[in-house]
Amino acid sequence: MRFVTFRTQDGERPGAVLSGPDAGADSDRILDLSDIASRVEDLLADGALLAQARTAAETADATALPSLGSVRLAGPVTPGKILCLGYNYRGHVPDGVDPRADDPEWPDVFVKTPNTLGGPSDAVPIPPGATDVDYEGELAVVIGRRAQRVPIEDALDHVGGYTILNDVSDRAWQRRQSQWALGKCSDGFAPLGPWVVTPDEVPDPQNLLVEVVRDGVVTVSQSTSTTIFSVAFVIHHLSQVLTLEPGDVVSTGTPQKLPAAQEAHRPLAGGDAVTVRISRIGELTTTFSSAREAAA
Amino acid sequence: MRFVTFRTQDGERPGAVLSGPDAGADSDRILDLSDIASRVEDLLADGALLAQARTAAETADATALPSLGSVRLAGPVTPGKILCLGYNYRGHVPDGVDPRADDPEWPDVFVKTPNTLGGPSDAVPIPPGATDVDYEGELAVVIGRRAQRVPIEDALDHVGGYTILNDVSDRAWQRRQSQWALGKCSDGFAPLGPWVVTPDEVPDPQNLLVEVVRDGVVTVSQSTSTTIFSVAFVIHHLSQVLTLEPGDVVSTGTPQKLPAAQEAHRPLAGGDAVTVRISRIGELTTTFSSAREAAA
Repeated sequence: MRFVTFRTQDGERPGAVLSGPDAGADSDRILDLSDIASRVEDLLADGALLAQARTAAETADATALPSLGSVRLAGPVTPGKILCLGYNYRGHVPDGVDPRADDPEWPDVFVKTPNTLGGPSDAVPIPPGATDVDYEGELAVVIGRRAQRVPIEDALDHVGGYTILNDVSDRAWQRRQSQWALGKCSDGFAPLGPWVVTPDEVPDPQNLLVEVVRDGVVTVSQSTSTTIFSVAFVIHHLSQVLTLEPGDVVSTGTPQKLPAAQEAHRPLAGGDAVTVRISRIGELTTTFSSAREAAA
Repeated sequence: MRFVTFRTQDGERPGAVLSGPDAGADSDRILDLSDIASRVEDLLADGALLAQARTAAETADATALPSLGSVRLAGPVTPGKILCLGYNYRGHVPDGVDPRADDPEWPDVFVKTPNTLGGPSDAVPIPPGATDVDYEGELAVVIGRRAQRVPIEDALDHVGGYTILNDVSDRAWQRRQSQWALGKCSDGFAPLGPWVVTPDEVPDPQNLLVEVVRDGVVTVSQSTSTTIFSVAFVIHHLSQVLTLEPGDVVSTGTPQKLPAAQEAHRPLAGGDAVTVRISRIGELTTTFSSAREAAA
């Protein structure tokens, strides 16, 4: 199933996305699930609610539902914490060289603060004066069940679903200190979505193609099979140190840009659009806007 | 004024701490402010509510109120984000050496996640297997009014008050990656409190003595006059990059341990207690407990 959070005049509501009568995303319909739960994270955390949502989706007449395009989506969940991995994809190495030779022993983990969260259609403001804003296309894991010191073999049981995060970064700020927070935490720098796909539709999270498209050019294209740390390991690992709660997001890092894209790279500016697409999940297109110089 | 959040069977409530008839902290009384606001951050954010709270405190008969010791305190606010500074106090330098010579150009900023927040009386669990847990006594600023790109001369207008944070750290995890998140974000690693003191009682945040006492020995003793980045600068600076919201906490870094304390230092263990005291604010005593090995 695909779960979304959509905005109404009375606040945000959870919904399921159903395929409409025609092929393609334009035909998608939305089923309001607010009779079953108030938040997507509650559906992910509670098997009984999830079963109710499945039944509702199976018995709904999709042709009678509003189109997905008629509603405005928020981030599919509101994470208490967004934990992100730095370097997690191996680069290309020549034949005969062990691709694991440079693997770090542990994932490098940083935090994006709640002000970074954006819905899938929300424009991301380029902060005034920012000169080096960049994108990172990432598979993001949404926690379903609380995870505290879970063994690796049980770790995927705590996954509520998968979505896409664009880990937008201000490289200038990121370089100015040892810690990356100010390069990662500008308002809106974590567009998330468009939906959470439940694990039954993503049987192997280590076999997904992550791609980024900018100006019609594929700038990133690499499988999650090339990550250093698997989703299961990362959930296990983080849960040794801190407790993961339903709705928390763990973003698994970005592959490097392709060599030609590294060559052609220019910082993001107002009007740019970046699409992150991941097999079995979907795609997240983010537009960037020149921030108004807000008054103090 | 001193604001606290206290726990009741019906949830958390805001309160004011009033001096009782006798001298000393044991005489403190608590005034329930839940008729005026539901959260301390709302009092700090809204001048009209703050004025009502002041009036209520001025007209209350302290002798008729319950003692502060009869209630259980939560963290005085529930911050949406906890932003912390790394290195921010100058060390001692020999006479004739410019103490500013090694000042960094920008503060080093990192994030503590919401699971770290603890009330002033909550024990902090030493995570299973942790071998190098340490304390850091810090002046913490609580944001009162939203701050977005504020000039330095207006920055203190956005401060709702001051409190104390013990930035508990697992040094072993902190050293394992470039980013410190896993060393800083174990559950309960941000005991906060006991109260928020409003700025009228802290006329100069750059003239406060920060001390830490462990096992009866003063291990840290340094004035906020020796910080590299003032509270006003830090609020200004952070607000250029992200929006600070009412209740957010900005912790201003810890002074180094005194030389003898560095020499005698041993990692924290279950049963240890650490007191952070800051002039004009108060003191925060945190006990550490051996974590139960929670079942997965």
